[in-house]
Amino acid sequence: MTDLDTLSVNTIRGLCMDAVQKANSGHPGTPMGMAPVAYTLWQRFLRFDPADPIWPNRDRFVLSEGHASALLWSLLYLTGVRTVDPEYEVLGRPAVTLDDLKSFRQLDSRCPGHPEYRWTSGVETTTGPLGQGVATSVGMAIAGRWLGARFNRPDFPLFDFDVYALAGDGCMMEGVASEAASLAGHLRLSNLCWIYDSNRVTIEGHTDITFTEDVAARFLAYGWNVTTIADANDLDRISRAFHTFRAETARPTLILVHSHIGYGSPVEDSPKAHGAPFGPEGVKATKRALGLPPDADFHLPDGVSDWFARGIGARGAELRTGWEKMFDAYRGAYPDSADELERIQRRELPDGWESALPTFPADPKGLASRDSSGQVLNAVAKAVPWVLGGSADLTPSTKTRLTFGGTGDFQPGARSGRNLHFGVREHASAAVANGMALTKLRPYWSGFLIFSDYAKAAIRLSALMEIPTVHIFTHDSIGVGEDGPTHQPVEQLAGLRATPGLLVFRPADANEVVETWRVVAALRREPAALVLSRQPLPTLDRDRLAAASGLAWGAYVLADAPSGEPEVILLATGSEVALALAAHEELTAEGIASRVVSMPCWELFDRQPQEYRHQVLPPAVTRRVAVEEGSTFGWDRYVGDGGVIVGMHTFGASAPLRQLLTKFGFTPERVAHVARELVASG
Amino acid sequence: MTDLDTLSVNTIRGLCMDAVQKANSGHPGTPMGMAPVAYTLWQRFLRFDPADPIWPNRDRFVLSEGHASALLWSLLYLTGVRTVDPEYEVLGRPAVTLDDLKSFRQLDSRCPGHPEYRWTSGVETTTGPLGQGVATSVGMAIAGRWLGARFNRPDFPLFDFDVYALAGDGCMMEGVASEAASLAGHLRLSNLCWIYDSNRVTIEGHTDITFTEDVAARFLAYGWNVTTIADANDLDRISRAFHTFRAETARPTLILVHSHIGYGSPVEDSPKAHGAPFGPEGVKATKRALGLPPDADFHLPDGVSDWFARGIGARGAELRTGWEKMFDAYRGAYPDSADELERIQRRELPDGWESALPTFPADPKGLASRDSSGQVLNAVAKAVPWVLGGSADLTPSTKTRLTFGGTGDFQPGARSGRNLHFGVREHASAAVANGMALTKLRPYWSGFLIFSDYAKAAIRLSALMEIPTVHIFTHDSIGVGEDGPTHQPVEQLAGLRATPGLLVFRPADANEVVETWRVVAALRREPAALVLSRQPLPTLDRDRLAAASGLAWGAYVLADAPSGEPEVILLATGSEVALALAAHEELTAEGIASRVVSMPCWELFDRQPQEYRHQVLPPAVTRRVAVEEGSTFGWDRYVGDGGVIVGMHTFGASAPLRQLLTKFGFTPERVAHVARELVASG
Repeated sequence: MTDLDTLSVNTIRGLCMDAVQKANSGHPGTPMGMAPVAYTLWQRFLRFDPADPIWPNRDRFVLSEGHASALLWSLLYLTGVRTVDPEYEVLGRPAVTLDDLKSFRQLDSRCPGHPEYRWTSGVETTTGPLGQGVATSVGMAIAGRWLGARFNRPDFPLFDFDVYALAGDGCMMEGVASEAASLAGHLRLSNLCWIYDSNRVTIEGHTDITFTEDVAARFLAYGWNVTTIADANDLDRISRAFHTFRAETARPTLILVHSHIGYGSPVEDSPKAHGAPFGPEGVKATKRALGLPPDADFHLPDGVSDWFARGIGARGAELRTGWEKMFDAYRGAYPDSADELERIQRRELPDGWESALPTFPADPKGLASRDSSGQVLNAVAKAVPWVLGGSADLTPSTKTRLTFGGTGDFQPGARSGRNLHFGVREHASAAVANGMALTKLRPYWSGFLIFSDYAKAAIRLSALMEIPTVHIFTHDSIGVGEDGPTHQPVEQLAGLRATPGLLVFRPADANEVVETWRVVAALRREPAALVLSRQPLPTLDRDRLAAASGLAWGAYVLADAPSGEPEVILLATGSEVALALAAHEELTAEGIASRVVSMPCWELFDRQPQEYRHQVLPPAVTRRVAVEEGSTFGWDRYVGDGGVIVGMHTFGASAPLRQLLTKFGFTPERVAHVARELVASG
Repeated sequence: MTDLDTLSVNTIRGLCMDAVQKANSGHPGTPMGMAPVAYTLWQRFLRFDPADPIWPNRDRFVLSEGHASALLWSLLYLTGVRTVDPEYEVLGRPAVTLDDLKSFRQLDSRCPGHPEYRWTSGVETTTGPLGQGVATSVGMAIAGRWLGARFNRPDFPLFDFDVYALAGDGCMMEGVASEAASLAGHLRLSNLCWIYDSNRVTIEGHTDITFTEDVAARFLAYGWNVTTIADANDLDRISRAFHTFRAETARPTLILVHSHIGYGSPVEDSPKAHGAPFGPEGVKATKRALGLPPDADFHLPDGVSDWFARGIGARGAELRTGWEKMFDAYRGAYPDSADELERIQRRELPDGWESALPTFPADPKGLASRDSSGQVLNAVAKAVPWVLGGSADLTPSTKTRLTFGGTGDFQPGARSGRNLHFGVREHASAAVANGMALTKLRPYWSGFLIFSDYAKAAIRLSALMEIPTVHIFTHDSIGVGEDGPTHQPVEQLAGLRATPGLLVFRPADANEVVETWRVVAALRREPAALVLSRQPLPTLDRDRLAAASGLAWGAYVLADAPSGEPEVILLATGSEVALALAAHEELTAEGIASRVVSMPCWELFDRQPQEYRHQVLPPAVTRRVAVEEGSTFGWDRYVGDGGVIVGMHTFGASAPLRQLLTKFGFTPERVAHVARELVASG
């Protein structure tokens, strides 16, 4: 441990407590305690080039205890990480300036309260909701292994990056972290290292009051290697632990660090150190204790920046430029693979990928949208080799298995497999998929729609991060039938649709499924939720009806009144579109002019120009009936004051679907009746 | 193991496979494998009286692998469990008849696809979504310990019941179960026994493909005792394991049972046994293998019912009547405690409890609704001694600690404590609170509103079960400020409001908080979500404005135009009500007649007679402006076609609140402007 080591560690601490103090808001405790560990990792081990923070084979650093963001901001500042925009191009200016640090937690600062992906370069994933970072890191480690299996060649070890995640007691208590740790242990992800900041203090007090399990023993049970550091300030021990991790080839590693929250401050080892500034006097006292000038704020001692440049900076530059040279040679030897890899990095798809998409002939019997989606997914995945995913132990039901040649399981001995078995771990499934998407693969995961509840926090993060994770949900309504109300979603559609930036698709038939995938596969910044049926849906006769390509506008006129303006509009999604069509035919036979609007994606429809929206839903036609086997919540926007919503007002029930449709009123007769009454009401 | 033992076990198996076969739907695999374990528990150990399935000191049996519902239905049928209505009165008729079994999974059968609380007597909690049952069982065990500490007296061991939960591989993989197990281990709940049905088969295949951790070692790490049964058909071993559990006084117990899914059937040990009937031939072959008459469906051999009557029936009756005798004597010795206990069982509150509720004087500075709620909660809890709860490690922020005399922490050595430390385990917090509510205590748990996402599946179950769990959420909007978008809820209100049967309250000031608790404390069948602010809210001047008691109607006119009908209505909830009032004053000064409607609980408002709803929101007044710092999703219902919603269309940002209010347009000027434009538009 040199003087410059000590000085660097304490410089980080000084910057962190100053940033929190100036903002009068934030979390100084963890940065004070973990600065030596983060410093050692970055300065001595992390294969990361501040000049190119998106170099594909960089080690990933995830700050799962995201409230300690000041720690990351200090590192980005001190190592001079450059800006990237949006995630493809490295720009010259620094990601975090001293002014950013000084405006920590202020509007538009690059140093917000928690790390936000895309907002600040060098942030590998958005963190703050506890457990999410570590769970996401498992996806990054999977992606690393998969990329290695796909692209590495003899003498071309293109991918061998490691993934580090810093986690606190909170992360260790969260269920999503447990799920992810169990999966990582099974998958033997030896490129994964979680660093457990065990300071034994949480917001309510000492962990003695609620968290007395043996974490090390638990991780051993998951199949991890566990190593312990008794003193978070012992840089040599810390280094030895990272060497141990690097030498491990069969298991993920947990480094358990006994640390002191608020180290050096008057509130060291107290919950008070967690989430509030130390106060001007506390900051001064701490600086004195650490040998920093007590009156200098945001102090950057001479030599520290240069020290980082000679450490992580020089190492990172050498590794990165060496990698680029290797890649140039690789491009000569394997041009197709090189091209593929570059497309992946730019989030582009192979030329002509759309030609693989099937079309489905009209068929009154039809097939479940989970089945058609399974077929289309296979076609997409065949055309786009970096589409991969799996299910939370429901693949035979969600139909998401890739079955064409060359797709096997992703397992410890089979890293090129494209089918993952996530296990009965919905929350980790979504978080892991996010980690894979952050590594620029095109992942999907699947489950029943009801279980989107389990994964909501990770689904939200995919939207907040603007990454194209594909969430596939089948068994999307009372169409589940006999499994009953515990398995029949009601309010889930509303919750997903209310999430900013998430595209929610509920296609009506196989060809809308095709169009859904056409949109979804091409997404680069938006996650999607596919909401699919368990039960068969007729494949609509597109010769008589509008083309399914209307899906791209979110909603479109599927069937219309013979001439002139309709008297009533029937709006529906998914399985209820066929029902609306049947009602439409009944009404037409009676001489009532009705229109059927298929509305598979509200979010896309809301983005269309008003002109188009008014074409589909003319303001003058105020008699509208919406039909959806879900909560009515949210539909008022489209049916308006004059409309009626045929939806669910209670939970479902356990019975064969046919009985449920009658019980809850989802029959053509009922819909036609409602429409008829509406027309008659004047 | 007697012949009658064997016959009883195989009778259960026969009934289960017949029920699934007749329904042509369901899950036979687990009942076949676990019938001997369930049989042994019920027949030899469970202190449960089929004639009175709500006897307060009964042992609880939770079928956490709820898809195996046929197993429970068979047991309820064979033991003759009586019906309860709604949860207070035992009726004479059996809970499950042979006809019910024969109509398994059909509409209105008492044998639905998954166990549903209230629907079928003998079901202690609704299960099916994996992990929920075991997590809920922890709450029941906590409640058992707490009831014992409060009510037991020398010679009056009123409460010493045990809680058993049957869980499969799926439950063991779910994060919520991990959280709950860690908490149960910490709390040393030796009255809790989880039985792990380790059949090593899940829907996607053998657990080898994704679940290879050492579960026993993991539970030892949590601080549990673990015992293993190598053969699920070995009744003596099973009995010995239950004796071991009963002898354990310091730790929860995990009984790990090596079982065979679909035991005896042609698909034994295969994923095919999980979720589909065996087929007529498969059923016959299985019956032959088990020594049952292959052609007799729903076969009840002579002597089996009587055998159950002499086992669990006689034991249960003796224990229950003994307990009642003891309780009679207890009533004489401790009349007040006896009265309290009877109120708890009937979900009634102490007489005059409402007199404890405070009122808050008008105060422009005011206080955060989390603070006022903390005060009111303490008043309620003082008046209602069985109100208890805690937070997912956020008590200092959510202000939910009970601080008056006699309330300490609930801990291993302190079972009468009323403050629980749930740890950073939101999902388990909600599920544990559900378990306490099912034991008829009045529990609450708290967290930030954003983390309701983590707990949504358990919140939903409280609504589905119609139990009065209180979910307290603070930091309810961009009002969170500097913590930024990861911590600022946007779509959470919509997701909660869309949930059938959940009452969602977002009170505007301290006195609406009082009225919220007045409603919430008295709930007997409905869960509530309290949505509270981090930032101070002015305490409104009720001399000038309408009384806060209007909250009971869900929405009410808080301030009105000086005379006649208003030109525009401003609707708001929570922190935005004061904002609407400021805009209202601005408009009034300009001579624009506006009305302010406070709308703290949509669900209650929707239940009011149309006349009242039209008084508050006259159909003729179509110019309406809703203001809420959340997703606009759902508000269209109240603002109508002529209205405007001032809400969130994106995620939030990290900055001090004042800056965020300007950035996102939540200022009186903006709201007045929107209203003015609306009025001007004609």
